[in-house]
Amino acid sequence: MLSPAATQAAPPHTQSVSSRLAETRKHTLALAAPLSDEDQTVQAMDDASPTKWHLAHTTWFFERFVLEPHLDGYRRHDDAFHYCFNSYYEAAGPRHPRPKRGLLTRPSAAEVRAYRAHVDAGLNDLADRIADNSGEPARLIEIGINHEQQHQELILTDILSLFALNPLRPAYSKEHQIAWSERGQAAAAEWIAFPGGIRTIGHDGDGFAYDNEGPQHSVLLRPFRLSSDLVTNADWLAFIDDGGYQKPEFWLSDGWAKIKASGWQAPGYWETDEAGDWRQMTLGGLLPVDETAPVTHLSYYEADAFARWSGKRLPTEFEWEFAAGSNDGQRLRQLFGHAWQWTQSAYASYPGYAPEAGAIGEYNGKFMCNQFVLRGSSCATPTGHSRLTYRNFFPAEARWQFTGLRLAEDAS
Amino acid sequence: MLSPAATQAAPPHTQSVSSRLAETRKHTLALAAPLSDEDQTVQAMDDASPTKWHLAHTTWFFERFVLEPHLDGYRRHDDAFHYCFNSYYEAAGPRHPRPKRGLLTRPSAAEVRAYRAHVDAGLNDLADRIADNSGEPARLIEIGINHEQQHQELILTDILSLFALNPLRPAYSKEHQIAWSERGQAAAAEWIAFPGGIRTIGHDGDGFAYDNEGPQHSVLLRPFRLSSDLVTNADWLAFIDDGGYQKPEFWLSDGWAKIKASGWQAPGYWETDEAGDWRQMTLGGLLPVDETAPVTHLSYYEADAFARWSGKRLPTEFEWEFAAGSNDGQRLRQLFGHAWQWTQSAYASYPGYAPEAGAIGEYNGKFMCNQFVLRGSSCATPTGHSRLTYRNFFPAEARWQFTGLRLAEDAS
Amino acid sequence: MLSPAATQAAPPHTQSVSSRLAETRKHTLALAAPLSDEDQTVQAMDDASPTKWHLAHTTWFFERFVLEPHLDGYRRHDDAFHYCFNSYYEAAGPRHPRPKRGLLTRPSAAEVRAYRAHVDAGLNDLADRIADNSGEPARLIEIGINHEQQHQELILTDILSLFALNPLRPAYSKEHQIAWSERGQAAAAEWIAFPGGIRTIGHDGDGFAYDNEGPQHSVLLRPFRLSSDLVTNADWLAFIDDGGYQKPEFWLSDGWAKIKASGWQAPGYWETDEAGDWRQMTLGGLLPVDETAPVTHLSYYEADAFARWSGKRLPTEFEWEFAAGSNDGQRLRQLFGHAWQWTQSAYASYPGYAPEAGAIGEYNGKFMCNQFVLRGSSCATPTGHSRLTYRNFFPAEARWQFTGLRLAEDAS
Amino acid sequence: MLSPAATQAAPPHTQSVSSRLAETRKHTLALAAPLSDEDQTVQAMDDASPTKWHLAHTTWFFERFVLEPHLDGYRRHDDAFHYCFNSYYEAAGPRHPRPKRGLLTRPSAAEVRAYRAHVDAGLNDLADRIADNSGEPARLIEIGINHEQQHQELILTDILSLFALNPLRPAYSKEHQIAWSERGQAAAAEWIAFPGGIRTIGHDGDGFAYDNEGPQHSVLLRPFRLSSDLVTNADWLAFIDDGGYQKPEFWLSDGWAKIKASGWQAPGYWETDEAGDWRQMTLGGLLPVDETAPVTHLSYYEADAFARWSGKRLPTEFEWEFAAGSNDGQRLRQLFGHAWQWTQSAYASYPGYAPEAGAIGEYNGKFMCNQFVLRGSSCATPTGHSRLTYRNFFPAEARWQFTGLRLAEDAS
Repeated sequence: MLSPAATQAAPPHTQSVSSRLAETRKHTLALAAPLSDEDQTVQAMDDASPTKWHLAHTTWFFERFVLEPHLDGYRRHDDAFHYCFNSYYEAAGPRHPRPKRGLLTRPSAAEVRAYRAHVDAGLNDLADRIADNSGEPARLIEIGINHEQQHQELILTDILSLFALNPLRPAYSKEHQIAWSERGQAAAAEWIAFPGGIRTIGHDGDGFAYDNEGPQHSVLLRPFRLSSDLVTNADWLAFIDDGGYQKPEFWLSDGWAKIKASGWQAPGYWETDEAGDWRQMTLGGLLPVDETAPVTHLSYYEADAFARWSGKRLPTEFEWEFAAGSNDGQRLRQLFGHAWQWTQSAYASYPGYAPEAGAIGEYNGKFMCNQFVLRGSSCATPTGHSRLTYRNFFPAEARWQFTGLRLAEDAS
Repeated sequence: MLSPAATQAAPPHTQSVSSRLAETRKHTLALAAPLSDEDQTVQAMDDASPTKWHLAHTTWFFERFVLEPHLDGYRRHDDAFHYCFNSYYEAAGPRHPRPKRGLLTRPSAAEVRAYRAHVDAGLNDLADRIADNSGEPARLIEIGINHEQQHQELILTDILSLFALNPLRPAYSKEHQIAWSERGQAAAAEWIAFPGGIRTIGHDGDGFAYDNEGPQHSVLLRPFRLSSDLVTNADWLAFIDDGGYQKPEFWLSDGWAKIKASGWQAPGYWETDEAGDWRQMTLGGLLPVDETAPVTHLSYYEADAFARWSGKRLPTEFEWEFAAGSNDGQRLRQLFGHAWQWTQSAYASYPGYAPEAGAIGEYNGKFMCNQFVLRGSSCATPTGHSRLTYRNFFPAEARWQFTGLRLAEDAS
Repeated sequence: MLSPAATQAAPPHTQSVSSRLAETRKHTLALAAPLSDEDQTVQAMDDASPTKWHLAHTTWFFERFVLEPHLDGYRRHDDAFHYCFNSYYEAAGPRHPRPKRGLLTRPSAAEVRAYRAHVDAGLNDLADRIADNSGEPARLIEIGINHEQQHQELILTDILSLFALNPLRPAYSKEHQIAWSERGQAAAAEWIAFPGGIRTIGHDGDGFAYDNEGPQHSVLLRPFRLSSDLVTNADWLAFIDDGGYQKPEFWLSDGWAKIKASGWQAPGYWETDEAGDWRQMTLGGLLPVDETAPVTHLSYYEADAFARWSGKRLPTEFEWEFAAGSNDGQRLRQLFGHAWQWTQSAYASYPGYAPEAGAIGEYNGKFMCNQFVLRGSSCATPTGHSRLTYRNFFPAEARWQFTGLRLAEDAS
Repeated sequence: MLSPAATQAAPPHTQSVSSRLAETRKHTLALAAPLSDEDQTVQAMDDASPTKWHLAHTTWFFERFVLEPHLDGYRRHDDAFHYCFNSYYEAAGPRHPRPKRGLLTRPSAAEVRAYRAHVDAGLNDLADRIADNSGEPARLIEIGINHEQQHQELILTDILSLFALNPLRPAYSKEHQIAWSERGQAAAAEWIAFPGGIRTIGHDGDGFAYDNEGPQHSVLLRPFRLSSDLVTNADWLAFIDDGGYQKPEFWLSDGWAKIKASGWQAPGYWETDEAGDWRQMTLGGLLPVDETAPVTHLSYYEADAFARWSGKRLPTEFEWEFAAGSNDGQRLRQLFGHAWQWTQSAYASYPGYAPEAGAIGEYNGKFMCNQFVLRGSSCATPTGHSRLTYRNFFPAEARWQFTGLRLAEDAS
């Protein structure tokens, strides 16, 4: 049974780290449950990974960074898995090439489940030795939980990319789609104003956050307004109908080149049926486009072009964070749990940022180039993984995630 | 249990077509049996197809060309399968793109097996209505049997291409490797002479043959000699050691460009271990190179370069066929069941050749461009599928098949 | 002033080799004369070379293979030119990459002309020392003359490929176009029959021929018929109008893939104007398609598809040669001087063929793979370069040459 | 005769706009003077344009944006030139594709010079009618002057990219190299501290600036230090010798992938001679690497990796601008006239930025994606084109410009 995605930022944890670890590990298996071993083996494109690989890689992360350094007597499950399931950690040695992950029919899904059980047993042993939530192992487990939650979202987005290419258009889960569409809305969007000034941005260090959310620091904002709601599919249809994809004046130069080369005429996973009506491939299968739902599967180029067409702009990530955390932020709907929201901020380090030493330091910093920050969270983000200060990031042309937008404008 | 590959051309059939059909269908499943459903789902490269796809495509062939036109009341198993499992028949409608076959996690392997059972039941019904081995249905079933035998060979070559990319280097079957290496030989090769003259080439129409094996016609040959044996791995090591891959004078211009671009320094699936010794990925796993066995996994470029380096040449397909069918052909070893033998003949139609009308006519003729003919058969060719007149063909750079060579020279 | 292309095979030479050498060298400069130094510098695609490069490479050929080995005291013009102007002779050392020839703004066209003068002076010196037309230097000069003549044709085809991409659509020469269209014809094509039998093919060794035209040998032909005339533009328009480019049943599998990928809907250099009428970029500029002229700029794929659409076939190169040399061959028009004629024969060595030793042996043999033979000659072939036994060859997708077709059919 | 590049920001203009226009136009021709018409025709890569194209495009810019709208009775020189010499202005209609600019052997360089003369005459006419430096035509001429100055720099960087691929390694100009190397320095670099606070960034609107330099606005800075000098070739050799190009921990993920794929082991245009010594292709030809000179031809990836290796970082563009404009900025050397200095700032719009309407509005804004800002100016930047607020920008992998770096660090 799938947990519905959280529609608010995570509250402070009241559970122990080991209890949350167990839940997280279990939830990952639940996400894989509707899928056959075959479904779990294949990747649809270089950016996406097989479910089985996600199951194994998150496990490898705990084995490599938690158990091997911190559990005396731990025995590595299988040396070859280190090569197979390292993702991008140069410091952790050579690894299987990303575009070839879908060729790994061995180890089998059953073997990967056994690997998970082996590592879970190790994590249990370790938990018994850790009295409280503090200390280096607990800190690393916390990173591992958050890492695995990220991959929970990728399991959903990656299987969607695979099923969308399948002529049978299979549904991942009928329930999921229902839960998602219930969250749609029809209220008219309003503009919510926020004052300028020197504002504090970034995580305060209380509770878990990724290194890229700090150091906390000040930024200077000018007065601005945000839309109370995300742009909807109905809004997007108006953009399409107005020839939005045919007018270069709305597009970044790279974006125009991209839509010409790829033939994009609509968001990702949209297609027309024989009658010419728009349909969208979703986790619930191929469905009519729901006009009240937030538009998703947009590239940065499309989000930016839509904003120009609207005479508005994308918010900066600082505007988003300040607004979402302020009192008037209560009036902003759909901050979390619907669609990641493209900002105009290129992904970069905060002043004073320094990645951790060693392989774990490769988590975030080395990607600070040619990517844009997205804020909020999506319908695929697991419960407990959303934060005001959370910084997601993708290249401008990525659109296999649940990515949408919220409009902004200058207030003065 | 795998049947050992036939080492001679097929004798005249004594069994009924329906009995042979049942055996063929069963043998295909036996070939898939050592593989998990995951193994059966993935393709390693565009040229190779997943096992599951082979299982389904051969079934589709019977459904589309035999049952639908000839079994009254036959009900198509699933419309979507027609799109999924057509290979290249333009006349049979649009189809799933070849490089995306490995993305079809649905239909599942279990559904494909059910598809096979459904079609087998239809074929049984049809067999009951066919009194003898004659008539159009029997003719089409015969084509379907031969078609499925070709895919039996591809199941083996394609799974090898997948397992060769897997870091675990899995064996498809330990037995297979043993059977194969027993067939190795160590006798010194001799030159067998054959006279020139006007010779009859092509199939005489008695028993099954593909359309590209006829019309039977005359060709003019000059006296020539063939080696009694295939070139061995030991011979190939001598070529490598003499710098064969570094000397442009032995290579076709395209071949030299290919080995520069691809980095080829040895036959396909060869690699060196830490000690610098050559090992070869086989259906039995990663094994030391067996010096007495025929060299396999050669491109045409390599076969041709080796022949020049030897001061010899490749035979034409007409020399091969005439020699193999003549009395002195008894002295030629390893004609069948070891390695397909590259000839210098570009794949072209015989004089007077005309393909069948309709989709079935797309079987052979439309590939008569930029391919070379190979004669004989390989260790992966199923029993009963070898013929003196059989014409296999592949592009010059293909080497994922069991392809080797036999040297020739002018006799005068 | 351009010489009109020869419309018949070359008669036996009555001039001395040195006199013909001088004329050939002069004619190359005449071909370059209508072009600015800028025009002579650039290449439009990897297959084509700049005029300047042709001027220099043909000169290098004489320097490297004639003067350096055979003219005592000859001083190489410039060492760097050896790197710049070697084409593909591996045995002659490293060389400038083919796709980068168009980047060589230095040496300048003026320097290349000086290089020609330097080498011409050397060739003059050598001629003074050669009493007659015999001996190794004379033999090599003969090869050099023929080599340069080939490049004369390429100068024309390559500049056309450049000018066709220029928005100004410049004419190379108005005269050339006139001369060419005068050769058009309107007589109805007839079928000319030829008997089968054992026929002698290849050059008899009397006078110059390339090594690939021999050894002379026998082939067995079946009775056949050839069309008296080449396929015309009017014929081709009928093929287009009948949807020839949209019907897969006429196409080789590779050909169908090629026209899908490239968007080809007509011969090379054809385009429609605003009124929808077909126009063709020619050496005389952009002109209306001349319906009576032979169709040119066809790939093998198109020639083959047209033949199938016509219910005919392409001739083999042996049928072409035997027919053209027989008495009834007098009734075949447009054998030479209009368009190279695709045959169905893959380019391969004749029985007993052995290339020369050393670099000069790389002239022909190493290209015997994935190419088809064309016979006759084109409107761009220089006078004196046509022969009954001449074998031109190009890959199936090449169409920047003046390539057309003549239909054949079985006679029995 | 080449003007030496300016080593300081441009002083306020005392000359009239028409006088500066005349000088700018003349200087462009002077830059082309050492080059043959052939040299001016070719482009070495997609990013670079031929000299001739630069000469024509800058002229087109004046014709299209100044003369056609503002000079009554002006007659367009040639309609086809509008297609040939538009660069990227979608609103100005279709245009010749960028990677094909080097194929334009027509119009000839002589015709382009005539085009320049025609437009210059028009500009003279217009100047006679403009009493002062104000008004829309004067404003557009000012943009045109600055536009042409940008292309003056590109003429030099693009011809270097061409000559670097020429086996003869020609020098563009011996003088240029001398002027450049004299500017080298050997003083030890110092760290200059700058205080934090709210700082004014961007152009104040007095005198010419590009639209992307405004609106002027405030930013919040933290205390920081800049190096007094640019990183030198000697520094870079230390990075190479320490294995900088082999250690992934210093590199962005995209940067590491780039150097692996391209084989970069040193800055652009560096190579080793037979003795293993580093040499650099320059506008003065192939010369030994000058250790005291600022390192140039770096990608952003390399600049960033060097900074990490040094334990420092790149400055933001705001730090650079504030520092260079402050009193202590006097102590910063090589701000202008040596090498463009990569900053860590992704190229983005300033708050409140809105591009001009129409085609001229495509000048800057549509490139605000996947590029980084560089500050200062280089040895190839023409006199009068440098400004404190100037924002140059290139993709992270570009290195055919004279791009270097200045280190920064946090001060607190």
